[in-house]
This record gives sequence, structure tokens and C-alpha cells, in this order.
Amino acid sequence: MKERLAIGIDLGGTAVKAGLIDEKLHIVDQRVCPTEACKGFEHVLGTLAGLVADLAGDGQSIVGVGVGSPGPLSPSRGVIFKSVNLPGWTDVPLRDLLADRTGLSVVLENDANAAAYGEFRARHASDDLILITLGTGVGAGTVIGGRVFHGHFENGSEWGHLIVQPGGRSCKCGQIGCLESYASATAVVESVTTAMAAGETCSLSGQSLSITADVVAEAARSGDALCLRVWEDACRMLAVACVGMQHAVNPRHILIGGGMSAAGAILLDAVRRHQKALTWQLHADAPLIGLARLGNKAGIIGAAALAFEEFGP
Amino acid sequence: MKERLAIGIDLGGTAVKAGLIDEKLHIVDQRVCPTEACKGFEHVLGTLAGLVADLAGDGQSIVGVGVGSPGPLSPSRGVIFKSVNLPGWTDVPLRDLLADRTGLSVVLENDANAAAYGEFRARHASDDLILITLGTGVGAGTVIGGRVFHGHFENGSEWGHLIVQPGGRSCKCGQIGCLESYASATAVVESVTTAMAAGETCSLSGQSLSITADVVAEAARSGDALCLRVWEDACRMLAVACVGMQHAVNPRHILIGGGMSAAGAILLDAVRRHQKALTWQLHADAPLIGLARLGNKAGIIGAAALAFEEFGP
Repeated sequence: MKERLAIGIDLGGTAVKAGLIDEKLHIVDQRVCPTEACKGFEHVLGTLAGLVADLAGDGQSIVGVGVGSPGPLSPSRGVIFKSVNLPGWTDVPLRDLLADRTGLSVVLENDANAAAYGEFRARHASDDLILITLGTGVGAGTVIGGRVFHGHFENGSEWGHLIVQPGGRSCKCGQIGCLESYASATAVVESVTTAMAAGETCSLSGQSLSITADVVAEAARSGDALCLRVWEDACRMLAVACVGMQHAVNPRHILIGGGMSAAGAILLDAVRRHQKALTWQLHADAPLIGLARLGNKAGIIGAAALAFEEFGP
Repeated sequence: MKERLAIGIDLGGTAVKAGLIDEKLHIVDQRVCPTEACKGFEHVLGTLAGLVADLAGDGQSIVGVGVGSPGPLSPSRGVIFKSVNLPGWTDVPLRDLLADRTGLSVVLENDANAAAYGEFRARHASDDLILITLGTGVGAGTVIGGRVFHGHFENGSEWGHLIVQPGGRSCKCGQIGCLESYASATAVVESVTTAMAAGETCSLSGQSLSITADVVAEAARSGDALCLRVWEDACRMLAVACVGMQHAVNPRHILIGGGMSAAGAILLDAVRRHQKALTWQLHADAPLIGLARLGNKAGIIGAAALAFEEFGP
């Protein structure tokens, strides 16, 4: 009997990642393409269909396709309502269009939810978890009772837009004081460059254009006062949100992923330290905070796992 | 065939309420007793057993007993870990002790969760909801998919301890900046009396000892500047938490209950106004904010509904 496989797609604003995944969630084969969202929806749909055809090859036993996409979107209807990273996409029924084009069953999920499900499955555990992804923005996905949590409007687990500082910084989403405007990689870099522009001393002076969250983390590690302050502020706001997750959802695990999590110990130690200082001692119900394990493969692995879950035997 | 009934108990720090409830969740009979927690656990257990015996009477068909209690507690194990309002109670297996004493099946639930379940059932709807109760503290209960949500550590939905103002006011729970320290009835009264003690002009001067949240609401309605400011601050912090609930849990409804909700329109209008100003316009996923319907009967009705749910056919 042929091995059953699923295809997982991580549809990003810049790149589309796709993987052929086996039932043990190992990557058998993978591809990356530029999204070229500017060329319009038909072009992107063609790219997705091409990747699926390429990975499926001849005569593979493909259970189905999972697609993780930026939202807001409706998993139950398979429709992307709109997306900051996919300009011009409005109420796109991506699931059914891709199914028509490929002849395969397709499941659509929010990208951070798909990644959270990937991390959940990678742990071989049944414990509830929340994954926070730190990148251009702050995404989040929640797995409760072994299932991705959606909420009534199917737009739950947007912890990046928890208001952690009322009256604070403006967020791209239109709110004021969101976690995302303090703890995304973008926010960390902006905080440093803004302070430098205002005349603050910094070991990174003169290299504004090449500053990334990694560079800030490295400078903080080396004792740069500005970078250390910005990094600590970001980690403290993350910890404020973690305390919120503890009280609201009370999960076993909070995992930190996304590009910025490559900073490793300087991120994890600081978030844990602030969380411990901020949370109550009334009851030992604080989640374990850890780093995500799958790196930038979480999206394709999680999307494929959802396809197995939805279309498996 | 005899009508099937359940007994719902709302175990508070000051009073124990108990009701005999039919399957349509109408109150057939009810009792209230002082808790007298200072007399120790055995005394309170005796009171509970006495209320059950009294309500059950002779030959009624009692399905079981539901008890809503302050926590933290474990519904699955039926144990109260400890309680600020029930001094000296530590790891009390109330469920099994009360079952032994009464010969009836007993289910134990967090008091705000029981009230949330009561409100859920009273709406005859299947939509997810969060109930916030504003009283001495700020309690909360969440119903998702028709079931009370607990979380991995069974202590979820403690929205009263969301940090809404990092570095802000001290909360009794040991954290800094909790919703409870801004939006409980206690917090509202303390804000007014503290400002008066600091010399601020207020129409309530000279009656400090009789100020309640209702009195503050009434003064705010009459245009008292201090009371209006305190009231608006409380409602704005509640709205910050509502935005958090929207993004995290994405429920259809947020209901406001507890003693302070008797203020009615001046509470609801202000929370809705602040929520609208604070939340994003990216996607129409804002919960409907409304007032709870069952008043101080939510606890006994919800607890009885849980007994029907758990022990019914």
C-alpha cells in the first residue's frame, strides 16, 4: 500500500512555502516561490496550483492540501476576507478555487493557527497551548483539547492585538497600545532607530538600515544600554500578554516562535523573568513558557497535519 | 411521573443561596442563609446539607446538586483549593463530602462559571459568551460550544486579573494593574473616597461611609465631575478587557453582571462607547456587549443547570 501524504502550504506576503508531508509529519519534499501578490489573485492561485501539481507528482497518494494564510478568514467557509499582505484580496473563496484547480480536497486555516497546530503535533502531547509568532507582526494560534480554537467569529487568538498599554503606541490595525506595536520584530527595530534618531547613544549608530531584531538582540547581549532597554520593554509587554493568556485561556504551554525567536535564551529568559514578576502567586496555574520547535517549517507541517486531520481515514 | 428537579447552591463569602429548580430552569423554591465561614468548614458543610435536605423535602425527584463556589478550585476533582472569602479552607473536597452527607450527586463549579452557564441557558441560544461580574471583585465565566470553559489548569476565564494598566494599581491578588483594581464596585468606591480624602470636590462629601458603586453611578448621572471621571475610567478599563476578550476568545456575547450592573444604561452605554473607540475596524468580529439577565439568581440557576447537564438522562 502506498504511503499517504498531504501537502502543506504557507502562503505569506513575500513567499509561498509548500511541503509534501508524510503521516509522521516529516517533510518528504518542499518548494519555495515568490508570492508576487502584486500580480493579482489569478497569478497567485496559479502558483499554488503549480506547487501542488509539482509536489504531488505522478501517482502519489495525496490525502489533501492544507493552506495557512494571513487573515482575517473563515476556515469553515474557506474564504479569505482580506489581508494586509495580499493587497486587493477581498472575500476570496481560496479553498474551493484551489480544490477545483487541483482536484484535491483543501482546508484553509489562519497561518498562525496552522503553525500552532504544527507545534502541537510536534510535541506528541495533548496539552493545550498558545503559540505566539514574533515577526513583522505578532501572530498567535491556540490549540485547546487537540483542536485549533476559532471562536464564534472564527477570528480568535489574535493576541497580537491585546491592548497592553492603553493610550500607548499606534498599531497598524488601528488600535492604540497593542502587543504587536511593542513586541514584533518591526517594533523592536523601530524603537531603536527612533531613539537613535532622537540622539540617543547606541553601538549601532551609523548602521540604521541594516538593523534587524537579531542585531538588536546581539547588541543587547553585548551590553548596549539602548538595545537592552528596548529588548526588555518588548519582553515585558510579551509577559503582560502571557499573564493575560494564563488567566483567560489557562493553557499548559505558551510557545514563542517566528523570526525573532531565533534570539533564543535572551528572549526566553527575559519573558519568563518578567512573567514570574508580573503574575499572581495565588495558584500554581502559570503556563510553561518555551520556544517553538519547528522554526519556519511550522506553517507547512501544521497545514499538512490539518489536511490529514480533515481528510484522513 | 414526577417532575425532575435539581438544587443549585451559590456559596458566597457572606451568604449561601440555594434554589430548587425545574428542568425549564424556573425557581420552584429558594432559601438564603448566612455563610458564617468564621465558624469553620464543618459548620458550613452542615448549613449546605441542611439547605439541601430542606429543599429536597419528602419524595421529590432530585437529579443532583450543583454548587458554585469562589475558587481557585478543580471542577473535575471537586476540590476547593483555597478561597479569599472562605478563610482556612485549603484543598477541601467539598463535592464528595456534600455528596456523602446528602446522598445526592454533586457537581462543583467556580461561581462565575456557574453564573455564566446560567446566563447561557437563559438565552436559549448556542452562541459563545463571556460573563463578567462586577462586585467586590471582578469574576468571569466563559461558555464555548455550549460548555463551561476551564483551561488546562481548570482556572481559566479569570478576566478580572487581566493586566490592563502595567505599573498601575495594586490588586489584592498580588498583581499590579489588574482589571479588578479599576472596575470592581470596591475599586470604584475606593477611587472616589481616595480622591475626596485628597481634597477633591465631590457632591458626596461627608457621606464617605455610605458610598456604594450605585451611589457613585447616581452622582455621575447627576453630573458630579469626580464620580463621572471615576465611572468613565472604570468603564474604559472594562472596555480594554472587552477588546482583549474579542481578540482572544472572539465570543458572540459579552455580558456584564454582578451587583454593579444594576447601574444599567450608564454602565452599558459607557462600556460600549469605549469599546467601539478602542477596537479595530479591520474585521467585524466585535462581540455584542449586553447586560446579564438573571441578576443574583444566575448562580443558583446556573449551578442547577450544571447538575441537570451532568446527572440528567
